[in-house]
Amino acid sequence: MINEAQIEETLEGLFGNPDFASEPSGLYDPLRYMIGIGGKRVRPRLCLTAYSLFKDSLSDEILQPAAALEVFHSFTLIHDDIMDNSDMRRSRPTVWKKWNGNTAILSGDVMCIDSYRRIAKAPARVLPQVLELFTATAAQVCEGQQYDMDFEDRKEVPMGDYMKMIGLKTAVLLACSAKLGALIAGADERACDYLYKFGYCLGLAFQITDDYLDTFGDTSVFGKKIGGDIINNKKSWLLTRAMEKGGEMEKSGVITHGSGKAALQAAMAMKTDSETERKAKIAKVKGIYMDLGIDEDAKYEIIKQHAHAMDYAGMIGLPRVRYEMLHRYAERLLGRTK
Amino acid sequence: MINEAQIEETLEGLFGNPDFASEPSGLYDPLRYMIGIGGKRVRPRLCLTAYSLFKDSLSDEILQPAAALEVFHSFTLIHDDIMDNSDMRRSRPTVWKKWNGNTAILSGDVMCIDSYRRIAKAPARVLPQVLELFTATAAQVCEGQQYDMDFEDRKEVPMGDYMKMIGLKTAVLLACSAKLGALIAGADERACDYLYKFGYCLGLAFQITDDYLDTFGDTSVFGKKIGGDIINNKKSWLLTRAMEKGGEMEKSGVITHGSGKAALQAAMAMKTDSETERKAKIAKVKGIYMDLGIDEDAKYEIIKQHAHAMDYAGMIGLPRVRYEMLHRYAERLLGRTK
Repeated sequence: MINEAQIEETLEGLFGNPDFASEPSGLYDPLRYMIGIGGKRVRPRLCLTAYSLFKDSLSDEILQPAAALEVFHSFTLIHDDIMDNSDMRRSRPTVWKKWNGNTAILSGDVMCIDSYRRIAKAPARVLPQVLELFTATAAQVCEGQQYDMDFEDRKEVPMGDYMKMIGLKTAVLLACSAKLGALIAGADERACDYLYKFGYCLGLAFQITDDYLDTFGDTSVFGKKIGGDIINNKKSWLLTRAMEKGGEMEKSGVITHGSGKAALQAAMAMKTDSETERKAKIAKVKGIYMDLGIDEDAKYEIIKQHAHAMDYAGMIGLPRVRYEMLHRYAERLLGRTK
Repeated sequence: MINEAQIEETLEGLFGNPDFASEPSGLYDPLRYMIGIGGKRVRPRLCLTAYSLFKDSLSDEILQPAAALEVFHSFTLIHDDIMDNSDMRRSRPTVWKKWNGNTAILSGDVMCIDSYRRIAKAPARVLPQVLELFTATAAQVCEGQQYDMDFEDRKEVPMGDYMKMIGLKTAVLLACSAKLGALIAGADERACDYLYKFGYCLGLAFQITDDYLDTFGDTSVFGKKIGGDIINNKKSWLLTRAMEKGGEMEKSGVITHGSGKAALQAAMAMKTDSETERKAKIAKVKGIYMDLGIDEDAKYEIIKQHAHAMDYAGMIGLPRVRYEMLHRYAERLLGRTK
C-alpha cells in the first residue's frame, strides 16, 4: 500500500525542480518562482491520495496529471493577483509586483498551457474523460472568479450565491483532484463520483476556513496579514453570514446591542487611510461578528461540510486502512483552525 | 471531393453562433464579441483545407478541433491587446477597452480553456498526438509574444532573431492548423510534416505581409491605421531589414543620400505628440525605406516564403486537383499585397 511518506516524497520530486522550459527566461522564470513559493500542494496531494485508494504503487501515469492540478492552480493565482491588485502572496511579492502586469499575464497563460501539457499525459484509455473533467473544472474556476468580482459591485450577496461562488472558485478543483486520481487508477464510476463529492465538500470547508482565518487567524500561522477581508469589505463567508443573520435578528426584533445590519454597514463605511483607522475598523467589524456569533457559525459550517465529506468517503466502501487515508487528508487540510 | 464553398459554409456554421456558455455573462460576452468581430478564419480554413486533401466529406471529427484554432487565436489577441495597449482591432474597440483589463484577462483565460474543450473532441485514436501538437504550439505562441515584447527594449534586432520570433508568434499556429487537419484525416507522417512546413512558410509570408501593409498598405483594405508600427518604433520586418541593410551599405561606403542607419535612428527619435508630427515621422521613415528598397525586399521575401510553401505542398505528392486547393488557399491568404 502507498503511504503518506511516499506521497510526500513524490510531491517533493515533482515540485523541487519542475520541468518547465527555460527560454525565454522572461516568460518561464515566473513559473519557477510561483511553484517555488507555493505552499501545501493540497490538490496534487489529494489526487495522489485518491489514486492510492485503488493502487499499490505510484506509477508514472499519475504523476504529471497530479502536477497539472498544482500548475493550473498556480496559473489562476498569478492572474487573480493582478485582478485583485494583491502585492503579496505567502509573504513574497506576487508575480505582477515582482515583474510587471504584462509578464504576469503572459507567464500565467503559458502556465495554463503547461498544465494541459501535463494533463495530456494521462493514460490514453481515460484521456477523453480526464480532459473533459479537467476542462469543465478549469472553466468553472474562471466562472467562480468572475462571480467573486461581480460580488464587489453588489451591496449584499445571499448565502446561496456565496456558496455557489466558492463552489466554483475553490471546491470544484479539489473535487476534480480527487476524482482524477480515482479515474486514472481505474476506479468505477460510483467511487469516482463519491470522491468528487468528498473533494467538493472539503473544498467548501477549506474556503470557509480561509475566510475565518483572515479575520480570526494568527498572522504567524496564516502567512498574511489578518483583517484584509474586513479592510476591503470583501464579501467573505463571515460578512455574508453576518448580513444575513443581522438582518434576520433585526427583523425579528431581537436586541442586537448595535450589532445588527445597520451597524455592520456603518462599520464597512469606516475610513482605512491610516494604520490606526484600519485597526479601528477591523476591531469594530470583528466585534460585531462576535456579538452575532459569526465565528461560531463559521466553525459549525466547517465541521458540517467536513462531516458531509466524510459521509461521502464512507459511501465508497473502502477497506478501513484506505478510508483512514482520506480521514487523515481531511484532518490535515482543515486542521489549521484548531 | 470537398470544395471551398463547403468549407466556407462550415466556417459560417461554426462561428455564426458559437456554442460558448452564457453565464456569468461578464465572463462569456467578450468571447462572443471577439469571435463576432473576427476576421478571415485563416487558421480553421487551413485546417479544413488540409483535411480535405485526404477526405471526401467534412465529418464531425474535424469541426471542433478546427474551431479550437480560431478560439485559441482569439484568446491570444485579447491578451496581446492588453499587453500592447491596443485600443482598436478590426475597426472595433478591443476587449480591455470595451470592458476593462480584468475582464480581458479572465475572459481570455476561459477562452484558452474553451479552445482545449474543442481540441479534446479530436478522435481518441489521434488525441494524444493532437494534444501534443496543439500544446507545444500554444506554448510557442506565448514564447513568440515574449520575444516580441523583449525586442522593445533592444536597440537593434538581427534578422535571424526577428524571423525566429515571427516563426513562434505567427507561423507555428498556421503550421499546426495544416498538420492538425492532416492528422485527424489520418494522413501519413510524411504528409503531416510537409503540411506543417507548408503552413510555417505561409505563416512567415503572412506576417511579413502584415508588416508590409502596416506601412505601405491602404487603410480601407488593411482595416487599421497605416503607420502604427513606425509611430511605435516597432521592430517590424521592415525596420529590421532597414537597420541591417542601412548598416551594410554604410559599412561598404555606398552613398545613401541620408538614408543609412544613422538617418533611420534619427527618424525613430522624432516626436509623435501631434498629428502633424506623426505624419512627418511616417513620411520620413517611409522615405528611408523606399530609398533603401525595403519595400521591394519585403515583397521578394514574401514571394520567397510563398514559393517555399508551395515546394512543400508539391512534395506531398497529391493529385493535381487537391494540390490546387493548397495553391488557392495560399493565393487568398497572401493576395492582400497585390
